[in-house]
Amino acid sequence: MAIGRGTNGREIRDFVIMKLGGSIITYKNRWMPTLHKDNVKRLAKEIGEAWNERKDLALILIHGAGSYGHVLATLYKALKENEYERKLLGFAEIQRLQNELNAKVCAYLQNHHVPATPVQASASAVLENESLVHMDIEAIKGMVSVGLVPVLYGVPAYDKKLGGGILSGDEIMKYLARKLKPNRLIHASDVDGIYDKDPKKHKDAKLIKEITRENVKEVLDMLSGSAYFDVTGGMVRKIEELMELEGIVAEIINGNRAGYVKRALMGEVGLGTVIKT
Amino acid sequence: MAIGRGTNGREIRDFVIMKLGGSIITYKNRWMPTLHKDNVKRLAKEIGEAWNERKDLALILIHGAGSYGHVLATLYKALKENEYERKLLGFAEIQRLQNELNAKVCAYLQNHHVPATPVQASASAVLENESLVHMDIEAIKGMVSVGLVPVLYGVPAYDKKLGGGILSGDEIMKYLARKLKPNRLIHASDVDGIYDKDPKKHKDAKLIKEITRENVKEVLDMLSGSAYFDVTGGMVRKIEELMELEGIVAEIINGNRAGYVKRALMGEVGLGTVIKT
Repeated sequence: MAIGRGTNGREIRDFVIMKLGGSIITYKNRWMPTLHKDNVKRLAKEIGEAWNERKDLALILIHGAGSYGHVLATLYKALKENEYERKLLGFAEIQRLQNELNAKVCAYLQNHHVPATPVQASASAVLENESLVHMDIEAIKGMVSVGLVPVLYGVPAYDKKLGGGILSGDEIMKYLARKLKPNRLIHASDVDGIYDKDPKKHKDAKLIKEITRENVKEVLDMLSGSAYFDVTGGMVRKIEELMELEGIVAEIINGNRAGYVKRALMGEVGLGTVIKT
Repeated sequence: MAIGRGTNGREIRDFVIMKLGGSIITYKNRWMPTLHKDNVKRLAKEIGEAWNERKDLALILIHGAGSYGHVLATLYKALKENEYERKLLGFAEIQRLQNELNAKVCAYLQNHHVPATPVQASASAVLENESLVHMDIEAIKGMVSVGLVPVLYGVPAYDKKLGGGILSGDEIMKYLARKLKPNRLIHASDVDGIYDKDPKKHKDAKLIKEITRENVKEVLDMLSGSAYFDVTGGMVRKIEELMELEGIVAEIINGNRAGYVKRALMGEVGLGTVIKT
């Protein structure tokens, strides 16, 4: 089943890694794994339009687990130390469920002419205390080189220290960003970006439009010092991790706003909070 | 989600790689992808019983694609050289479909208490003219070491020469056998083993019980010289490939015969054609 070489005249000028948060592709509040079909359909359409309009785009997608992962992981953690066989079964079942979620997401993308190709990171990933210490990326590079769009996702993975651990979509994104040096990282989340204070409590909260090496300390101090930190703890860590990379343009945008994902993929910068390193 | 170390008191004395042929887990004659549910249920039960009775067993499973792969691969080959975007979409869709088949097979195994963990080989596999030249096996080794049962399967994969190619379950089995040196390989197929002539045409055809370095040339000459070769061409190649390995006990058994898969996993040798190298 030869595809042939080259990328069908695609001359890559923009290489993007985009994460679709688990909070926008699933109903995160649901106990049982529940796909947010309306969102996934719309996002697939937006990605499909951008992919087919821009022939200079190379793309890797990553999605979170939302209600496909969190509930099971909680059940898993509730097991007693000696319930070893149950843990093995739980690990296997969570992995299968993530593949099922990924197959659904890829099917919607394929409906919109995106050659969205599942890539199960845990097939080669090795964790150490839930940090990704090794993942083989040759096949992923090869897929991108011929014009495929690899779609990775949060998964349980073998862990040298713990036996098994969670490899989050964020951890995958960080690893790929470091190894593949894309031009842009886009986090499509369920928030508009990072505010100077909690927008749910303060009417005068302002969206921080840009975080750079110049203002990053100020922003982090501000976020860490406020009650808003509880909400954005994950964001603070994300910013710190992004700052470890050189010359990256990352953006947190609201994937729930219609058109934002497409516009971001088309090249628009400034729809949310931009982080330049 | 720590599993913990060790294998729950399992002391591994027998390390088996077993392949479930696409012809027994799907209806291979069907045009559309169709799971052979009755067979998969029965095989899952047999594997589950063996897995839970034998605490000294380490196991990797591989399954074929049957009607989940062949039909689509044929459609794919019917594309014209210049239908590049269609090929990319086909590659992506075939991969997704294999993950869906694998999720179904794993779900049945999980019903029977086998910690059957999907492993998508193409996440790290690199082919060269449809030969597997690289696959990262650290995570697979890790999974086996904690007591999980990795379940691999035939997939489309990145190919250095062709762009994309088919990585068959047989090719995966050969690669893992070489790298992991299991005690036994078991091919559960839809035939009893290898006969001295075509059993469908000759009533006096005899099952060859054992192929060794002593009689292999004689057997291959006989098979290659007969019309039976058309039927067993794949088998001849399998035997030749097995002979490249040292000190392996491989067996072709009939997975359609109730109890055979369990008996083989329990340690019984001689249910079909044994190949000793």
